Amino acid sequence: MITDDFLREMTAVANRLADAAAKVTLTYFRQSGDVTNKLDQGFDPVTEGDKGAEKAIRAILDSDLPHHGIIGEEFGRKNDQADLVWTLDPIDGTRAFISGLPTWGTLIALSYKGVPILGVIDQPYIKERFVGSSLGSTLNGVPITTRKCSNLSHATISTTAPELFVGSERELWESLQEKTQLTRYGLDCYAYAILSAGHIDVVMETGLQIYDMAALIPVIRGAGGVATNWSGSEAGENCNSEQENGRLLAYGDPALKTELLTLTKGY
Amino acid sequence: MITDDFLREMTAVANRLADAAAKVTLTYFRQSGDVTNKLDQGFDPVTEGDKGAEKAIRAILDSDLPHHGIIGEEFGRKNDQADLVWTLDPIDGTRAFISGLPTWGTLIALSYKGVPILGVIDQPYIKERFVGSSLGSTLNGVPITTRKCSNLSHATISTTAPELFVGSERELWESLQEKTQLTRYGLDCYAYAILSAGHIDVVMETGLQIYDMAALIPVIRGAGGVATNWSGSEAGENCNSEQENGRLLAYGDPALKTELLTLTKGY
Repeated sequence: MITDDFLREMTAVANRLADAAAKVTLTYFRQSGDVTNKLDQGFDPVTEGDKGAEKAIRAILDSDLPHHGIIGEEFGRKNDQADLVWTLDPIDGTRAFISGLPTWGTLIALSYKGVPILGVIDQPYIKERFVGSSLGSTLNGVPITTRKCSNLSHATISTTAPELFVGSERELWESLQEKTQLTRYGLDCYAYAILSAGHIDVVMETGLQIYDMAALIPVIRGAGGVATNWSGSEAGENCNSEQENGRLLAYGDPALKTELLTLTKGY
Repeated sequence: MITDDFLREMTAVANRLADAAAKVTLTYFRQSGDVTNKLDQGFDPVTEGDKGAEKAIRAILDSDLPHHGIIGEEFGRKNDQADLVWTLDPIDGTRAFISGLPTWGTLIALSYKGVPILGVIDQPYIKERFVGSSLGSTLNGVPITTRKCSNLSHATISTTAPELFVGSERELWESLQEKTQLTRYGLDCYAYAILSAGHIDVVMETGLQIYDMAALIPVIRGAGGVATNWSGSEAGENCNSEQENGRLLAYGDPALKTELLTLTKGY
């Protein structure tokens, strides 16, 4: 049983984890230096930032919440059958990170029995922190909500890169594009943050890992949006099964459900 | 004859212009509200922001430098045959702006006899101001330089959208992509700013207007980079002639010239 007080307590923990990660990631952001030197020296700033930030987060969890499980992108699983599991992706959007673009994010989620109940999408360079749970979603502490957009023909949509859709998935993406107004690429987790804050309407992706996905879901839902797999079922649990294939469909206005699921059903 | 003192004086003016524009654009950024309401009421925040910011800039120029020419995206040309002409695009990257993404920019340039000598790329939401001239380029007052990348195979490249390249231009873009390491889309002016700060290596675009282009050139050059048309000649002057077609090629390391012009020659 998850109480509001417990969520508030865990939100405070998640904020501390994000602060610790930011100290590390910002040390490496825009520090790549000359391309040739970097390659010669085998120095990869995004890997260093990713590893260092996950270490910093895990140190706090190991010390303060030793019975909680952890699933991290860099250092794997610890006690991942626990009721309460933290899911970590210190730098989501590595291509943006290495290109000096401030649209990467640190993803931190807490799941209860496999369902994400608390999520943080942190962009420390711009200083934007999106936090979501059943208590609602906020940007830097200020409540946010998705916007109304009841018709796909008015919608702005986003995905990280069209190339990530393969075969019939690519046809699905193109048919969604044809029905909508504007497309934005290259945003990774930031697309879901901006959807939650009410500036775009639909994000669709495939091939996500649990640590790419778990933190997004409570932020989207806490802002009034919908996050499911492509068949309209709960996203998150078993997201990496062959059937689910890491597919996430997020939209701001629940009224878009019929139009969207008509498209995605059968994929 | 342009002296360093004159450039310093005009840089101070350009900063005041960017400050005035920022006050207006930030009023409209992320204020779009529900899509349906916006369309019903005929309210277009990016048009309001664009027009309001250009008005604010022109008011300062009309008052303080009445003999200078002006070419603005929204309100056209005034005395554009003057030796000194200001070129203005209050919101470059309107698609990013209406999607709540902080990768649009305000572009302000001063040209002398048709050649851009001073440029500002301002991103007021992130609070990043890139300024360039023969005095060098800066980000928020701190000197910036492009990075070394002497081989296309290591390069990160960018353009606003591949769909903007038509016919054989598209083939050229795809052949550049094949030779390089990483591509980023959707950045408009911010791509040139990030190139100037040493994080990406090549930006290639077509169909630019003079007000999209003029401010970029001094920032790129002041940081040690190269900005020409696709045939390697001076960009900026006559950029909208049939022959030039608004084509801009920017790269951070001058050593890339031969590889790049081998590709672009003949287009």
